[in-house]
Amino acid sequence: MKRYEKFAAEIAELVRSGVLAPGEKVPSVRHASRTYGISPSTVFQAYYLLESRGLIVARARSGYFVREHAQRSLPEPDIGATQAHTTDVDVSELVFSVLGSLKDPNTVAFGSAFPSPDLFPLQRLARSMAQSVRDMPAHAVIADMTEGNPNLRRQIALRYMVSGVMLPLEELVITTGAMEALNLCLQCVTQPGDLVAIESPAFYATLQVLERLKLKAVEIPVHPREGIDLDSLARSLEQLPIKACWFMSSLQNPLGASMNEAKKRGLYELLQRHQVPLIEDDVYAELYFGTQPPKPVKSFDRDGLVMHCGSFSKCLAPGYRVGWVAGGRYAEQISRLKLMTTISPSVPAQAALADYLQHGGYDRHLRKLRHALETQQASMLASAARHFPASTRVTRPSGGYFLWFEFPEQVDSLQLFQLALAQGISLAPGPIFSATRRFGNCARLNYGHPWSAQSEQAMAVLGRIIESF
Amino acid sequence: MKRYEKFAAEIAELVRSGVLAPGEKVPSVRHASRTYGISPSTVFQAYYLLESRGLIVARARSGYFVREHAQRSLPEPDIGATQAHTTDVDVSELVFSVLGSLKDPNTVAFGSAFPSPDLFPLQRLARSMAQSVRDMPAHAVIADMTEGNPNLRRQIALRYMVSGVMLPLEELVITTGAMEALNLCLQCVTQPGDLVAIESPAFYATLQVLERLKLKAVEIPVHPREGIDLDSLARSLEQLPIKACWFMSSLQNPLGASMNEAKKRGLYELLQRHQVPLIEDDVYAELYFGTQPPKPVKSFDRDGLVMHCGSFSKCLAPGYRVGWVAGGRYAEQISRLKLMTTISPSVPAQAALADYLQHGGYDRHLRKLRHALETQQASMLASAARHFPASTRVTRPSGGYFLWFEFPEQVDSLQLFQLALAQGISLAPGPIFSATRRFGNCARLNYGHPWSAQSEQAMAVLGRIIESF
Repeated sequence: MKRYEKFAAEIAELVRSGVLAPGEKVPSVRHASRTYGISPSTVFQAYYLLESRGLIVARARSGYFVREHAQRSLPEPDIGATQAHTTDVDVSELVFSVLGSLKDPNTVAFGSAFPSPDLFPLQRLARSMAQSVRDMPAHAVIADMTEGNPNLRRQIALRYMVSGVMLPLEELVITTGAMEALNLCLQCVTQPGDLVAIESPAFYATLQVLERLKLKAVEIPVHPREGIDLDSLARSLEQLPIKACWFMSSLQNPLGASMNEAKKRGLYELLQRHQVPLIEDDVYAELYFGTQPPKPVKSFDRDGLVMHCGSFSKCLAPGYRVGWVAGGRYAEQISRLKLMTTISPSVPAQAALADYLQHGGYDRHLRKLRHALETQQASMLASAARHFPASTRVTRPSGGYFLWFEFPEQVDSLQLFQLALAQGISLAPGPIFSATRRFGNCARLNYGHPWSAQSEQAMAVLGRIIESF
Repeated sequence: MKRYEKFAAEIAELVRSGVLAPGEKVPSVRHASRTYGISPSTVFQAYYLLESRGLIVARARSGYFVREHAQRSLPEPDIGATQAHTTDVDVSELVFSVLGSLKDPNTVAFGSAFPSPDLFPLQRLARSMAQSVRDMPAHAVIADMTEGNPNLRRQIALRYMVSGVMLPLEELVITTGAMEALNLCLQCVTQPGDLVAIESPAFYATLQVLERLKLKAVEIPVHPREGIDLDSLARSLEQLPIKACWFMSSLQNPLGASMNEAKKRGLYELLQRHQVPLIEDDVYAELYFGTQPPKPVKSFDRDGLVMHCGSFSKCLAPGYRVGWVAGGRYAEQISRLKLMTTISPSVPAQAALADYLQHGGYDRHLRKLRHALETQQASMLASAARHFPASTRVTRPSGGYFLWFEFPEQVDSLQLFQLALAQGISLAPGPIFSATRRFGNCARLNYGHPWSAQSEQAMAVLGRIIESF
C-alpha cells in the first residue's frame, strides 16, 4: 500500500468510527503534512482519493469536509434484546423461492449473494489456469485429489502465517468451496437432533444446512456492530446441551458485524471452558475496509477446538469452487468425510489458484476490491438516506458488500420483495435469515455492483414501495 | 471406427463370448474376405491389430489362432448362493487404511481405483480449458453455478440421445463427480435407519456412504458375469421395507458384471411394481469392449424412478470432478440438495469439458482407451494364469479395468494385502467390498496401467505370496 493510500485509509477509519463526524472539517493539508510527517502532495493525493470515494468533499477556499452521508445518516438497527431460541428449522422453501428470483440477468441484483464478477481478475486467473493445466504432470490429476494441490495448501498456510496464525499444514483440508467445508464440519461434530448455536439473523444457507441435517437451531442475537451477544451465548451454553457453534466473527452475513479482538478471545475462552467446538465461517475475511485484517477466533485456538472455514469465492474466484477448512483436532475426520462426499474439489481449479496466489498479485487485487466496495457502500448509504423513510435504520459495516435495513414496522419485507421484483429489483427479505421467521420488516441489500444511474433509480423505486406500506 | 477396427472388434467379441475357444483357428484371410465381403488387406489389418492386443497369435504356414489366455484360463468365481443380508455398515476404517497405502507413487498400483492418467488426453483437455476460461463471459462464473454450464448440459444430453435415451434437459443435475451425485440421490430418497439394497460384493464407497448416512445395507448377491440376482432381490423387496436400490447394472465394480438388456428391463419392472427408486451408478458406461454400448436401466424408465449417475472421471478427466445425474422425478430435489451441499462443481472445469465434448474428439479417444484396456486385461489374465495357483478363479469382464480374483480358501486377502505392500505392491482386498466382511480370500486388481516388466514381476511376487498361505 502506498503512503497516500495508507493515510487515506486512516482518515476513512476516523470517519467510519465517528471520530470525524459528518460535516466536520478534515485536517488541512498543511496541518496534516506537519502532524503526520508526510509531504503535502501525499496528503493531497489521499484527500483526492477520499473525495473520489465519496467520503469527503472539497469546499471552495475552506478545505475538505466529511460528507453528510459518509457517516451513517440513518440510525443503526436495534437487534439483540430477545432471548435465544431453540427451533426446528424449516426455511428452505422460502429461500429457494427468493434465489429463484435472481436468475433474470436484467434484475437489479440487490438480492444477490455475490459481488459483481467484474470486480475480479478473471483474465489474470484464466492465464494462471491455462499455464497450470498445460504444465500439470499427468499423475497429479489423480494424486492431488486425496490431499489437495500441495502448492495451494502451502500458499493458504502462508497467508495464515502472514495474518498471524501459525497453522500446521496437516490441519488444512481443501474443499469444494466453503459451503462444503461448513457442511463437513457440522457433520463431523453433530448427530441428527443435536442443538447448534447460530446467529440471529444468520446467513440463510446456515439455516438450510441445519434443516437438511435435522439439527435444531439455538439462535443467539447479534449486535449489528459488535457481533454475537456473549452473555446470551453463555446462558445458552449453561442451560442447553449445545454440540457446536456456527458463527461469523468478522463481517457477519447479513449484519456485517465484526467482533473486536477482546471479544473474540472471550468467545474462545467461553467455548473452551465448555469444550464446545466452533465452526468459524470467515468467507468475508479479505473484504475489510480498514488498514488491519481482522484476526479470526482461530488465532486464539490452543487446543484445536476451532474449525476455520475460508474460500476464494467472495474475494477472487467465484465459480472456481475452491475453499478450505483449518480443521483443528477434527481435520482428519473432516478429510475422510470429504473423500466420501465429493472426493475432491476440481484439481485444475486448485492448480490455477495456487499459481495465481504465487504470481498473480493477489494483494494488489484485494486492495482494489476493498476500495471499490467501500465506495459502493458510501453510494448506497447516501442513496438510502435520499430515498428511504427517515425512520429506516441501516448498518454501516466495516467491510463486505451487504447493508441490512430495518424499515418501519408496518413494512412486510416478503411483500416488499414481491412488489420490488415486479419492478425488476431483487432483495433478500429478512425472514430468510431466521429459523423463527423474524425480521419481517428487514432486508439485506447487496452493494457489490458498481454504482450506476440504474442503482440510484432502483433505490428510488424501493423507497416509494416502502412509503406505500 | 474404420472397417478393419470394426471387424477386429467383432472377432474379439467372438473370442470373449467363447464362440472362438482358446487354441482355435480364426477364419483364414481368404475365407474371411469372401464371407464378410471385405478386402483381404482389411482382414489382415484386423488380425494384425488383434495380434498386437494379444488376442490371437500367428503360427507359421497355419494362419492365426486364439491365444490360450485370450479366453479365461482360470475359472470364474462362484458368488451368489448366499441369501441377502441386512447389516449396519462399519467398513470405513478398513477402507481408509487400504486407500492410505496407495499414496506411495513407487507402489505397483494394482489397488488403485483409477486407470493410468497417461491413458487420458490431458493436453487436449488443457487446450479446451485454456480457451474456455479465456472466452468465458464474466457473468457466467456466477450464473453457471446454479444450473451448470448450459453447453455441457446439452452435450451430455446429446450423448444420452445417441445411446438411445431421450432425456429432458431438466432432469440433468451437474455435480462434483459421480460421488456427489450418488450421495445426493441417496439423501433424496432415504432417512437415517432406512434399508438400502446394494450389491455383494459392492464398491467400497457405497458402503462408506451408507455408513456415513446411517443407512442399513441389504446385500444382494451379484453373479460375476450376469449381475444382480433378481430372484434374491425380488424376495428382499417382498419381505423388507427397502427404500432404494444402489446398483451398477453395467461393468459392476468390483466384479465387472453386466446385466443383459432383458435383465435390465426385468429389474426396472420389478422396481416399478414396488415403486422403489433405483440409483443407477454407471460410471464405467463408456469402458465397454464390444461394439455396442450397454444400455442403462434408465433407458427403460417410464416414470422417473431411475436416477442415472455418470461421470468423466474414469474415462476422460479424472481430477476435474465433474459428474451428473439424470434424476428422473427427483431431479429438482437433488438440485436443491446440491445447492445446500457444495453449491456447484467448478465452473471452469465444466466449460472445459463442454468444449472438449464438442470439439476434442471424445469418441476417438474412447476407442483408443477401450483398446488399451482390453489389451491390458489380456496381459493381466495371461500373467495370472502363469503365476497364480491353478485353483485361483478370476472374472473376465467385458470392459472396465478391474479383475476380481478368488484365491484358494486358506488365503487371507487382508494378510496378502499387508505382505504385498511390504514388497511395494498394492491391491484391494475382498473384505472392503462387503458390509459383512465377506470375500476374505478375494481381491480386486487394477489393470488400468500399461502392462510392463514391472507389472509382470509384481504378479510373480503376488503368486509366491499366495502360494505361501
